[in-house]
Amino acid sequence: MPQVRVEKVCSDPEVHLIRIDDDRIKYFEATWDIPEGITYNAYLMKLKDAVVLFDTAKGDYTDLFMEALRKLVDPKEITHIIVHHTEPDHSGALPKVLEENGYRAQIIGTAFARNLLQGFYGEKVVENFRVVNDGEEMQIGGKTFRFIAVPWLHWPDTMITYVVEDKLIFSCDAGGGYGIPESIDDSDGKVVEEYLPHVTKYIVTVIGHYHKYIVQNIKKLKELGIIESAKMILPGHGLVWRKNPMRIFEHYERVGAGIPTKDKVLVIYDSMYGFVEGRMEIVIDELKKLNKKPIVYRFTDKEASAVSDILGEVPDSEALIIGVSTYEADIHPRIRYVLYEIFDKTNYEKPVLIVGAFGWGGVAGKKIEGLITTSKFDLVDTVESRGMPAKEDEEKLREGVRKLVSWIS
Amino acid sequence: MPQVRVEKVCSDPEVHLIRIDDDRIKYFEATWDIPEGITYNAYLMKLKDAVVLFDTAKGDYTDLFMEALRKLVDPKEITHIIVHHTEPDHSGALPKVLEENGYRAQIIGTAFARNLLQGFYGEKVVENFRVVNDGEEMQIGGKTFRFIAVPWLHWPDTMITYVVEDKLIFSCDAGGGYGIPESIDDSDGKVVEEYLPHVTKYIVTVIGHYHKYIVQNIKKLKELGIIESAKMILPGHGLVWRKNPMRIFEHYERVGAGIPTKDKVLVIYDSMYGFVEGRMEIVIDELKKLNKKPIVYRFTDKEASAVSDILGEVPDSEALIIGVSTYEADIHPRIRYVLYEIFDKTNYEKPVLIVGAFGWGGVAGKKIEGLITTSKFDLVDTVESRGMPAKEDEEKLREGVRKLVSWIS
Repeated sequence: MPQVRVEKVCSDPEVHLIRIDDDRIKYFEATWDIPEGITYNAYLMKLKDAVVLFDTAKGDYTDLFMEALRKLVDPKEITHIIVHHTEPDHSGALPKVLEENGYRAQIIGTAFARNLLQGFYGEKVVENFRVVNDGEEMQIGGKTFRFIAVPWLHWPDTMITYVVEDKLIFSCDAGGGYGIPESIDDSDGKVVEEYLPHVTKYIVTVIGHYHKYIVQNIKKLKELGIIESAKMILPGHGLVWRKNPMRIFEHYERVGAGIPTKDKVLVIYDSMYGFVEGRMEIVIDELKKLNKKPIVYRFTDKEASAVSDILGEVPDSEALIIGVSTYEADIHPRIRYVLYEIFDKTNYEKPVLIVGAFGWGGVAGKKIEGLITTSKFDLVDTVESRGMPAKEDEEKLREGVRKLVSWIS
Repeated sequence: MPQVRVEKVCSDPEVHLIRIDDDRIKYFEATWDIPEGITYNAYLMKLKDAVVLFDTAKGDYTDLFMEALRKLVDPKEITHIIVHHTEPDHSGALPKVLEENGYRAQIIGTAFARNLLQGFYGEKVVENFRVVNDGEEMQIGGKTFRFIAVPWLHWPDTMITYVVEDKLIFSCDAGGGYGIPESIDDSDGKVVEEYLPHVTKYIVTVIGHYHKYIVQNIKKLKELGIIESAKMILPGHGLVWRKNPMRIFEHYERVGAGIPTKDKVLVIYDSMYGFVEGRMEIVIDELKKLNKKPIVYRFTDKEASAVSDILGEVPDSEALIIGVSTYEADIHPRIRYVLYEIFDKTNYEKPVLIVGAFGWGGVAGKKIEGLITTSKFDLVDTVESRGMPAKEDEEKLREGVRKLVSWIS
């Protein structure tokens, strides 16, 4: 069973984190490989005359969540439950909380959230639901709660809560990441460094399809002046940010905009019988000669890279190189699947070099060129030929890499 | 390292099997999961004044193959090498064989095979290549070798060899399967039963894209009268057939035609948070009530079925039920990928019921309906609704299953 961490993260006002460390999950959303696991963070705020619960936990862990919650408070005493986002990794335990609460608490969320909760869990759950609009404020327990809609981060229902007097941002999925960090907050620099790549992977896989909204919504929060002055950011997954709250949204902005890390080139290829691999050895050699740092993901007879890991490498790459076999007059199935997700989830203006190998006819290169045309990526060149790379292929491959590198510089 | 089995499979003429049992491979063609492994079968026939090698082995195992070959014959003594199909799992060791042979042997294959070998391994390998046409016969060592083209089983280069006097069919990929059977031939009924599902999986994943050619080519071989009278079928993968040679091509025909096993219904679904799973429990319950046998493959937060295993279940299913989440206004990524492969590799006339769940809008059902329209499958019904299945959803689901079952009966 996962561990549950219950820790006080703020004394004034009194805020407790209830964090379920899910190390049993293998595929987030039943698709993204996350051997690093994930945490589900809920928060409980005790105010004078009010006890506010921010989100709950995944339904599978309802018992664990209830047990932890009861240690902090008698569920009957909860006066308000804020539902930032109804996805069941945050709302799954809500029906049980309400049951133990005797349906006394007011639930607060967007109109969209109300609709979804009703569909997910039935009428009873939304009987005492208070719909709030973007920017609306409520006085709860002597504090001003401002609710700010951040639609498509990453569902239409999503909002965050800003506690005005204390400059706290409860941000649910926005600001979250995969992984089960050792610490609960960002006080340890090493933990933060290890955690941020999992944040990138989370952003692209979960929010990537809507990634223009990342930039838009952060711009909105900045204009409201609440990010720069935030004292603490309390997301629905991963670390709580209180040493340097700005950092997590800066990271989100970088990923949303696809800001590259200098010299990083992402190399992805399949190789059925070594024909593509023979080419990629030349390509990687040339990249290194030009002082680039290739990050390589492969699909071979012994290795299948996780698509989620590949996606996590795209945002900060300077360029991509795709090595591909023509397979039954199409793109090799694994590369086709990866490219579909890349163009859907991480659609950035970055240059791409295609390297192809074929038996009786080269088709994959042309098909990928077609896909690139409908994306933001830029095609630099396609170098495609039959069987093992010959001497003249080697020169073309090196030339292709040089063109790619000069495109970046 | 894989084991190599060298066994005499025929005394008159003297034919030896060289079988490499590849238990290290994980993904055939760098994409299909095969925990069951695969064998690469080559054959050596010793005749008076001629030594004939039929295919070789995967390049990775060239040393193993040469070692086994040398035990049977001095490679210099090989007079003919028949290349049925140039895919490198059969041709990879050819350059080394030729080198040790001193390039004395004549290589025999289709014009297409010559072209591919040249592209794969260079000019020297095809210097002594004899192109044969469909139906052409050659006298080698006192025997009549007839070469029959079986294009698109599964490359354009493919042919088989029929040794007329002895009624032997050397069939390369046609007649092959995945798996590493305990025995080398079909003399043990239990081994055959265990092996045939791996054959189905092999057929659909490797040859499935061209599966109309399976039926066509077997028809051609039947019209030539060589299948019914064959004394032995010697494929490039898996079991040698000598007790009941007809059986393997009958199995190929069944798979090619998609002949169903009575009552077998294939159920495939994703479930992110239990909404789809809640529906599938009802569906499976109803199937069982109607005496159907559901075979279930799932994608959840803890389970990811292998696409190759799912494909292997399609040919002999009576019907399919697809359970799907709407994911970002599309089909859930894993189901989308599975369906792409099903429609490409196992495109049969079989009825399909779609069962969908969604949060804010049902899109997946419609999109799958669109895919079915362009396939041979028949849409029976789509039952799609929000969140957890309500009472009225349950009745619609059971009704959908009944419609599917009455479609079959």
